[in-house]
Amino acid sequence: MLEQHLSTLTVQTPGRGLVEITAEVRAAVAQSRIRQGLLTLFLRHTSASLLIQENADPDVRADLERFFARLIGDGDPLFQHRTEGPDDMPAHVRSAITATQLAVPIVDGRLALGTWQGVYLWEHRLRGHARELAVHVMGEAGKSA
Amino acid sequence: MLEQHLSTLTVQTPGRGLVEITAEVRAAVAQSRIRQGLLTLFLRHTSASLLIQENADPDVRADLERFFARLIGDGDPLFQHRTEGPDDMPAHVRSAITATQLAVPIVDGRLALGTWQGVYLWEHRLRGHARELAVHVMGEAGKSA
Amino acid sequence: MLEQHLSTLTVQTPGRGLVEITAEVRAAVAQSRIRQGLLTLFLRHTSASLLIQENADPDVRADLERFFARLIGDGDPLFQHRTEGPDDMPAHVRSAITATQLAVPIVDGRLALGTWQGVYLWEHRLRGHARELAVHVMGEAGKSA
Repeated sequence: MLEQHLSTLTVQTPGRGLVEITAEVRAAVAQSRIRQGLLTLFLRHTSASLLIQENADPDVRADLERFFARLIGDGDPLFQHRTEGPDDMPAHVRSAITATQLAVPIVDGRLALGTWQGVYLWEHRLRGHARELAVHVMGEAGKSA
Repeated sequence: MLEQHLSTLTVQTPGRGLVEITAEVRAAVAQSRIRQGLLTLFLRHTSASLLIQENADPDVRADLERFFARLIGDGDPLFQHRTEGPDDMPAHVRSAITATQLAVPIVDGRLALGTWQGVYLWEHRLRGHARELAVHVMGEAGKSA
Repeated sequence: MLEQHLSTLTVQTPGRGLVEITAEVRAAVAQSRIRQGLLTLFLRHTSASLLIQENADPDVRADLERFFARLIGDGDPLFQHRTEGPDDMPAHVRSAITATQLAVPIVDGRLALGTWQGVYLWEHRLRGHARELAVHVMGEAGKSA
C-alpha cells in the first residue's frame, strides 16, 4: 500500500556556496518510514538551487563556484534588476541554469545516491539566508524489497 | 488512499520569452481534487523550457532573456543545425541548460511555491508556438493535512 | 490502486557524447506493467547527465557537444580539481548545468514524450563508463485511461 509524507526542511546558509544537506534529507526520509519509494525536494526560492554533486574532493565545489562566478559576473552591466545588490540578478540566472527541484528513488530505506553523490543546497546570494524546502516522500513503509 | 490524475495543458506562446502559467497549473491541480501530494509537469518540446522564477519584478525576466541571448547567440557559426533558422539550435541549447520537467509538492490544496515563485513556460523560438504539457498529479483528495 | 516498481538500468557509454536510451527506458516501463503513471530516472553519477532532446537530426547532438566544449573548456586553468585529468572538472560543471534526474508521465502505457523527444544519457568524460540509473515507476497497472 502506497502512502506519502509531506514535511518542511529549513537550511541556514552562511553565504554564497554549496551546503551539504544529505544528512538532513536522509533524516526526513527516515522519519517518513518509507522504505521503497521516491523522495522529491522542492526549494521555495529563486536565488538558490538544489544540486547533486561530488561529496569527496572539496575542490569540486570551489571550482563550480569559480566557474559560475566567471560565467555570470556580479554587477554585470547587462542586468537591470539590481534591487538587492550586484549579486541579485546573477543569483536568479544561476538558479535558472541549475535546479529548483530534485527527485531521488528510495531503495531499502536508503536514498539511491551513487557512491560519490551528495545533496547540496547552493546559496547564490553573497549573504546567508534561511532557505525552506518542501519535502515529499511517497512509497511503501516498513518492509524490504 | 493515494490516487492520480493525468491531463494535458496547452499554452500558446507569443514568441521568445517567459509566459507565466501559474494560474493554469493551479487550475489543473484544483480540478484533480488532490489536496496533499505532488504535481509533475512535463514539456513535450525540445526548444522551450519550464522554469520556476521570480514573479515580482519583470526586469528579472528581461535580464534572463538578455543573459541567454548573449550566452547562446542566434546564428552562431558554431552551429550546423539551422533547419528552422538562426534561432533553432540556440533554442535546443537553452532547453538543455534549463528544465523540461518540474515537480512541486501540493500542501492543503495549494502548490508549495515560495512567496516570490511563479511557474513559467520559456519559449526559446522567436516565433510563437502552441506548447503542450503533460500534467501528473498524485496524492490524497479532499482532506486537510 | 496505485503501485510502484523500482529497478536499475546500466548503460555502457563509448566516451563523451549523447547516448539514446529511449528504448531501454520504454522496456523498463513495459516491464513494470504500469499503464498510467509517472516514471522517474535518477543517474547515480556526477560526471554525466540525463537529457530530453531532439531525436531527429544528429546535428543537434553534435552542436550541443560543440557548444558545451566551448563553454566549459577541458583543461581550463580556472579548475583546481584535475584528479582524473583535464576533462574531470568540466564533466562536473556540465552535470551541474544539465540534469541528474528526469520524470516523464506515462499515458496508456506509453511515455508522454513529444514527437521529436528522445531520452539521452550524456557522457561528459572522454573515456567510456558503465553508468547506473535508478528507475522508479508508479501508477496504475493493466488498464486504459
